This record gives sequence, structure tokens and C-alpha cells, in this order.
Amino acid sequence: MKDPSDTRVPSYIDGYGEVIPFRGAFNTNPELKRKAPKVKVVHPGRAKVLNDLESLFKSIPIRDGMTLSFHHHFRNGDRVVNKVLAKAAELGIKDLKIALSAVFPVHSPLIEHVKMGTVAGLDTNYISGPVAAAVSQGLFPYPVVMRTHGGRARAIECGTLPIDVAFIAASAADDYGNANGVGGKAPCGSLGYAFPDAEYADYVVVVTDVISPYPLTPISIPQTRVDYVVKVDCIGDPGGIVSGTTTPSWSKNQLKIAEMAASSIESTGLLKDGFSFQAGAGGSSLATAQFIRHLMKKRGVTGSFILGGITGSMVQMLNEGLFSVIFDVQGFDLEAVKSLASNPHHIEIGAGFYANPFNSGCAVNRLDCVVLGAAEIDTAFNVNVTTGSTGIILGGSGGHSDAAAGAKLTVIVAELGRGQFRTVVDRVNTITTPGETVDMLVTEEGVAVNPKREDLRRRISGSGIPLKDIHELKGMAEGMVPGAIKGRGEGPVVAVVEYRDGTVIDVVRKV
Amino acid sequence: MKDPSDTRVPSYIDGYGEVIPFRGAFNTNPELKRKAPKVKVVHPGRAKVLNDLESLFKSIPIRDGMTLSFHHHFRNGDRVVNKVLAKAAELGIKDLKIALSAVFPVHSPLIEHVKMGTVAGLDTNYISGPVAAAVSQGLFPYPVVMRTHGGRARAIECGTLPIDVAFIAASAADDYGNANGVGGKAPCGSLGYAFPDAEYADYVVVVTDVISPYPLTPISIPQTRVDYVVKVDCIGDPGGIVSGTTTPSWSKNQLKIAEMAASSIESTGLLKDGFSFQAGAGGSSLATAQFIRHLMKKRGVTGSFILGGITGSMVQMLNEGLFSVIFDVQGFDLEAVKSLASNPHHIEIGAGFYANPFNSGCAVNRLDCVVLGAAEIDTAFNVNVTTGSTGIILGGSGGHSDAAAGAKLTVIVAELGRGQFRTVVDRVNTITTPGETVDMLVTEEGVAVNPKREDLRRRISGSGIPLKDIHELKGMAEGMVPGAIKGRGEGPVVAVVEYRDGTVIDVVRKV
Repeated sequence: MKDPSDTRVPSYIDGYGEVIPFRGAFNTNPELKRKAPKVKVVHPGRAKVLNDLESLFKSIPIRDGMTLSFHHHFRNGDRVVNKVLAKAAELGIKDLKIALSAVFPVHSPLIEHVKMGTVAGLDTNYISGPVAAAVSQGLFPYPVVMRTHGGRARAIECGTLPIDVAFIAASAADDYGNANGVGGKAPCGSLGYAFPDAEYADYVVVVTDVISPYPLTPISIPQTRVDYVVKVDCIGDPGGIVSGTTTPSWSKNQLKIAEMAASSIESTGLLKDGFSFQAGAGGSSLATAQFIRHLMKKRGVTGSFILGGITGSMVQMLNEGLFSVIFDVQGFDLEAVKSLASNPHHIEIGAGFYANPFNSGCAVNRLDCVVLGAAEIDTAFNVNVTTGSTGIILGGSGGHSDAAAGAKLTVIVAELGRGQFRTVVDRVNTITTPGETVDMLVTEEGVAVNPKREDLRRRISGSGIPLKDIHELKGMAEGMVPGAIKGRGEGPVVAVVEYRDGTVIDVVRKV
Repeated sequence: MKDPSDTRVPSYIDGYGEVIPFRGAFNTNPELKRKAPKVKVVHPGRAKVLNDLESLFKSIPIRDGMTLSFHHHFRNGDRVVNKVLAKAAELGIKDLKIALSAVFPVHSPLIEHVKMGTVAGLDTNYISGPVAAAVSQGLFPYPVVMRTHGGRARAIECGTLPIDVAFIAASAADDYGNANGVGGKAPCGSLGYAFPDAEYADYVVVVTDVISPYPLTPISIPQTRVDYVVKVDCIGDPGGIVSGTTTPSWSKNQLKIAEMAASSIESTGLLKDGFSFQAGAGGSSLATAQFIRHLMKKRGVTGSFILGGITGSMVQMLNEGLFSVIFDVQGFDLEAVKSLASNPHHIEIGAGFYANPFNSGCAVNRLDCVVLGAAEIDTAFNVNVTTGSTGIILGGSGGHSDAAAGAKLTVIVAELGRGQFRTVVDRVNTITTPGETVDMLVTEEGVAVNPKREDLRRRISGSGIPLKDIHELKGMAEGMVPGAIKGRGEGPVVAVVEYRDGTVIDVVRKV
């Protein structure tokens, strides 16, 4: 197997250490044990509630250099990260490492905290907004570690991302730490990305704005792992979870691509009873889900499960009986939140169950099909969702590489180019998801199948769908965007892109 | 604090090792880390289903000297333990250690397996039937370790009870290992005692007689921890879960005691909104629950949660709105099983959540009141539910010591004597639950309050309930059963009674 990251990844990176280079999607066999946190004792009668963050900082106590973890279920509506870091800054704490599962524009105060020395490191699966640009320009003294959602769960469970204090923003909690994201005044839905943090952090803190009578149910985060419950005035704005990528307003091209993607999936023969499906958060992916819905209805297919980040249209498919179960690691809108609260077939799952490659079998392993987006895709089918064509960070894997690795059929939906940028290129700026795990690219001009999936090409070839070679699509992209902007940072490494197994698949350099 | 086990516990026990003597219910502060099992990898496409136990034994492979764990939710209807041990015997495997959460009469083939050398050790929380008698007579080459339900969870999570292979009998499972006890043809309800096994065993095997379409929900045991799914013809008879101690047919004395116990609890002032309650599996305990129910209705009290092993009468209280939540670690009858399957306020909990003393706070810590039985209780309020008056094993702690330690009010309900045996004695044959965690004894002749709870005595004293000194009750028992049988084994140690924190509170000697 050729290593697609070849010479771009150095063998040692200052502030990161020795690099284990990517060696294929399924070629890492860990000789590891799970993280073994210190065993605790809480006797009857001990209270866990604190009324302010300052008491918490002093009780633990939180000190210079610690790793604080957070989850991103409130997305751009999150209020907890900023509150905690403001308190750390006020108390003069330095050199914190922040393990935040995804960074949104709302988190821009992080920039100032890095400049002032409160924060020195970042470990995340996705970065958007001002922090992304600042990271690309070399904000952090150490390279940011960019993981996948499953890779973060793995790193926490295997002890390679040790967490001193996990902060869990929960819209409802009781005074003993049982917590969920469906109760209270600001529900955000699933708390799945926080499950590994709650299980393996040295200290676990639930931050809530509603303390419910004991015992709170349902229990997403159990009292047995929670050391403190901190009451604050507001943990987040649920309106902020509906943002950017998950809004369904589709262009003509996106609809064309989505329809072709759905037809291609149909041609593969996977669209039969028991079908399981995930759609990424991008417009074309979510549009494809709608076409899949129509096809399933037409054919009378009953699927098994929908996985991943969940939208109202997926809830609709569950309610229509097109799928039996939703496995929800993150709510993408308020319909998803409502459904999780009320439908027993809408199941909250943790990040490890979702996508950790190092356990006895995660849910992506059982996917028939995932439809994902791309900022760039190259002729080896490598996909970049980490940086744009200029080399500046604009996202990250999230669950992209996880689902691609697990699914029987991984479909990338993307326009050939957008504005001054080409999507289909010779070589992606940053490899997020390796081409070996990508089966098919669907563009507005036709479908290219990965040569290793000759079986798929044959199945699609008789269906009237325009089949192209990936190089042909690349040529069309060049014709469409003749003077495309293309750049890549050439400075020091600002971010290390870890594949889900912990190997390094690429780096992002300072622009 | 005086050590109630004083000189009866040797400092070293052959086949067990160094003894850490009991030193008070809350005086052990562990310097431990959680068990860290080996990290696993299961790639997409790997199948987990095996069609017979022999394939399983060879796949793992199961070898001489391994520890195999089992749970007891099918109680006397279990078919899995015998099947697995018969296969081990057939394959000539020797010296197995069996970690079975409770042993019932149905498990009597275990005796032959020990005699033949297939099984050499037993680790359990409760033993009844022929195995109990055989253990007392020195069946095992090594002392049996008797734990509490919370102590077993602790020992597994802390790595002091390492499990090579956990067998989980699940009435429904899918082909990837998601499993529960509410689906299928033979539902047993909660699988709570198996939760620690599933989390920390080196190999986890789900044994089922129904393989459901993927994904099975609800998920009690998750696919991420399950290595194999073995299909057998029958895992158990749900009729067997209703057995002996949980049948509500109460004698006149039991009813008298139960009514007095309920009135005493009322007098303490705990019976108000938010009241939380557990009843042991004995007749007087369950009868007390009925009187509590009537009092709650009369007073218009809405409780918070019911905990522990669950019966239909507790389900009735949930459905009547007398309690908000049931936390169910084990179903005691088929009404409990049905309710768990359908009522979202009837919550399945694991043994660690229930009663592990070494985590960030288990559910027994939040109990207002527990009502428990006793085979013997002495003037120091120490309780014996491990051996009878003749020194022969007849049970074990189960959750007895756990709930007693956690609850604000621990009430023992017991007749002064039964047949030729006295219940209230100078010194119990075996200390299961230390007197410092017992607040009150209710007998048919009156109530004795532990002298350390003068506050309780004052509250009860004006209520018309006959208050007695414990020595007075002991004297009445002596008068009632003048020629009582009382014996205690004097031979080698056949069982080590571990308190929930892992210290040794007593030993059982060969009779």
C-alpha cells in the first residue's frame, strides 16, 4: 500500500513529538491498554454542587498546564468554553491545553487567551471561524492536534489524550451529577461526544443552568463519574446548533449532484431492506438524504439505522418508518433534539460507540453507505475537508474519515469547482480522508468510481448515470476554473492531522 | 472504631492470601487505578456470531485456570452456567474460577464440576441450594470469595477480580453483540450485574437464543465491548426468576413486623416528598413496602426513586405516581421485566451505579431508607445473612451491606426466632453487614434502635411503637426458643466474606 501522505509529513514535529506516519486505513494494531483513571470514593452525604466556577477552580484545583476538555453539542451557541477560559484567565492560570471536540466562531475569545498565555494547546476535530484563520497563521506555540470524532474517542480511551478536567455542558442535571441534553431550558440533544471525557477524565464537572430533582432521567452522563456540578446562568443558546453547514437551502448544482448520488447508490444494489445510512453535514449530502428518502419510499425499502449528526429530515425518515433506529451522536437542529427526548427508537450514542476504531466494533463499521462532502478531492480519491484551496483551515474531519472507513460505500458529493477554487485536483492541499476509503465521487458533470471498486463501476455503468474517469473530472474542473487560486502554507507546522488510528496522515503549515 | 470482626479473621488465608481486615464501613481509601483491559480492534466486516459453545472455546481459546464470569438475572431459571461448564468439562479444561454473581439450586452441577477438577474456585455474592451446603462442607480446594453486589462491581472495576471471559445471558442480541434482557422469547429484565463484566473482562461473550435484526434496541450491553455472540437453544426459564424469597405470602408475624416497620419509618420524618426506598428480597421487607405504599398514599407523599431488585408491587407504586423513577439492577418477577421494557421511568442500572463504593457516588448513597432481612442479628446490630444458626451457608450479602451503608435509615425486619433458631443473638455466626450501618431492628415484639442513633429513638418514642433495648429483645428470643440450635463451623476457612470495600469482615469455616 502506497502511503498517500508520502514526504509531506516530517518524522518529528516540535511540540508534537515523534510521528507515526499513516500506513493504510486498517493497518494499525495497537498494543495498548485502556486508560486507567484513579479510583475514587464518594461517601453518602457528600454534596457535589458548586455555585460558581471560581469555587470549582479552587476545589480541584485547576493549575497551570492542565488539559481541560469540552464538547461541541451547542456548536455556535456554546457559552461554557468562554466562561471557563475567562475564569482561568482571571485567576492567572497559564499554559492550559484545550481538548474541545469542535471549535466554532463563538469561540473566538480563545485567540486572546492564547496570546495572553492562558491557553497554549488545542486538540480538536474541527475548527471554523476566526480561530481557524488564527491557527493557520501560527497562533499557537505548539501545533494543534486535529483528530476525527472516532479518533478523539480512541485517544481518550487509550490514554493518549489524557484529560485533567472534563467540562460537560448539560441542559439538565441533578445535584449528584446525572445529566442530559434533552431536559432543562436550553436542550442541545445528544451529549455523545462527551461520553469518553466523562469516562476517562481525572475530574468530571457537569456545568448546567437547571438543577432538576434527583434522580434526573434519562441519564446520559451518570453520577458515578461526575465529581462536581456547577450551576451557571446560561450554558448555551440552542439556536446556535443550527448553523452554516446544516441548513437545507440547496443550489441547482447541489440538487443535480444529490439526485445523481442517490441514483448511483440505488444502482449499487445496497438500497434494500436493512439499508443503513449516514449523511455528512454539507448541503449536497443532506440533499442526497432527501433523494434517498424518495427512493426508499418508491421501492418500499425499510432501512435499519441512520447514524451520525442528526437533522429533522432524518427524524422524518424515522417517523415515516423508513428506518428503524437513529443512532445520534450530535443533534444538528431542534427537531433532532425533540425526537431524542421523546422517541425510544432515537438512541443517544457516545463517540466511542459511533466511531472509535479501537474497540470491539463501532457503529460506522455497520454502515452500508455514507455521503460526504469535500473541499478538495484528488485523482487518488484523497479528500480534504481540513483546509481550503489557499491552505487555510476551514474545518476538519469530524466524522468524515471514520464513516468513510467504516461504510461499505463511501460517496463524495462535490461540485467541480466553486468560485475561484477547483474541487477536483491533482493533489489535495491536506489529506483528511485517504482515497483507499473513498469509493465514488459524484459531481454535477458525472460520477467517478475509485478504480479499486471495479464492481461498483460495473453496476452503475448500465444505469444511464454519466460515468467519468477521475482525471477527466479533474480536467473539466481545470476548464471550468482556469485561473484557480491554489496555495499551501510553507511555514512551520501549525496543525498535525491525525488519522482515526492515531497515525499522522498530513500536516497543516503556516500560511 | 472497634473492629467487629476482631479475632475471628486470620491475617492470612491459604488459597486467598493476605487479609486486609475490616476497619469500619467508610475507612478504606483506595490507592488504585481502574482496570485497564487490552485495547481491541474490530475492522468492518468481521462477524461475531458463533453457532455453538465449542467454537467459542476454541476461538478465544478458553484454557485451564481462567476466570469465567456469569450473572444471575435468570436466578433459578438460568441455563447458561451449566451449559458452559458442561462444555468445559467435555473439553477437559481444568481449574476454572467461576465468578457468578449469585448461585441458585439450578447450579448444583457445579458440585460435580468441582469434584472432577473442571472448576476450582468460586467468587459470588450469594449462594443457595445444594452448592451452599457443599461449600460449607469444604467442596472447594480454595476458599470461596463472597462479596456484596457493589463489592463485586468494585472488584471488577478495580482489577482485583480480573475476568478472562464474561458470559452474558441475554434474551435478545443482534449479530454485533448489542444485547438486552427485555426482548426475545425469555426476557429476564435488567442485566445490571453484568455491566461491569462487559466493561472490564478480557473477552465478552453474549449468549442468546434469539438473534434480532441489527441494531437491537434498547442496548443494555453495547457492541463495542462484545467479542462474540453465541446462539444456543435456550438461555433460561423466566419463570425461575420468581423464586423463594420474592414471593409475597406473608405470615401474621411478618405482617405485624412490616406494619411496625412502616410506622417507625414514618416516625423518623423521612416519609416526605423526595423519599427514596429500597426493600430487600425477604418476605417482611416486601411486606413493609406495601405498608409504606399505603402510608405514602394516605399522606400524599411523592417519592423520588425505588432502588435495587424490583418486584411487581414496586412497579405498581411507580405506576401510581408514588415514585418518579425505578432504578432496576435486577428483576424479581415478570411484572418488573414488563415494566422495564415499556416504562421510560423504569431505568436499568449497572451494579456499579447501584452500589460500587469506589466511584464518584453510587445510588445507595442517595437512599433515605432500606428495609432488609436477617438470619441473625446481634446485640451490636451486626447482621448475618450469610450463614444460618448452624453455620451452614444459606445466602450472602447481595446488596444487603451496600444498601445498609448507603441509606440514611437502615431497618432490619426479623422475627425473634424461627423454629429451633434464634434470630436475635449475642453474637452472629457470620458478620455480613456491620452493626455501625444498621439503625434499627423491628421484631414482632418491638423495635430496638442502635444506640448511636439516639435521634431516631427520640423521634419514635412518642409514637406508640413499643421501643425495646436490643438486649431485651435478645432475652425474649432466648425465652421463646429455649433450646435453640446454634453452631458454627470450626474447620478450615471455606469462604471469605469480603465487605464491599474489599476488606475481610468475616470467614465461614467448614462445618
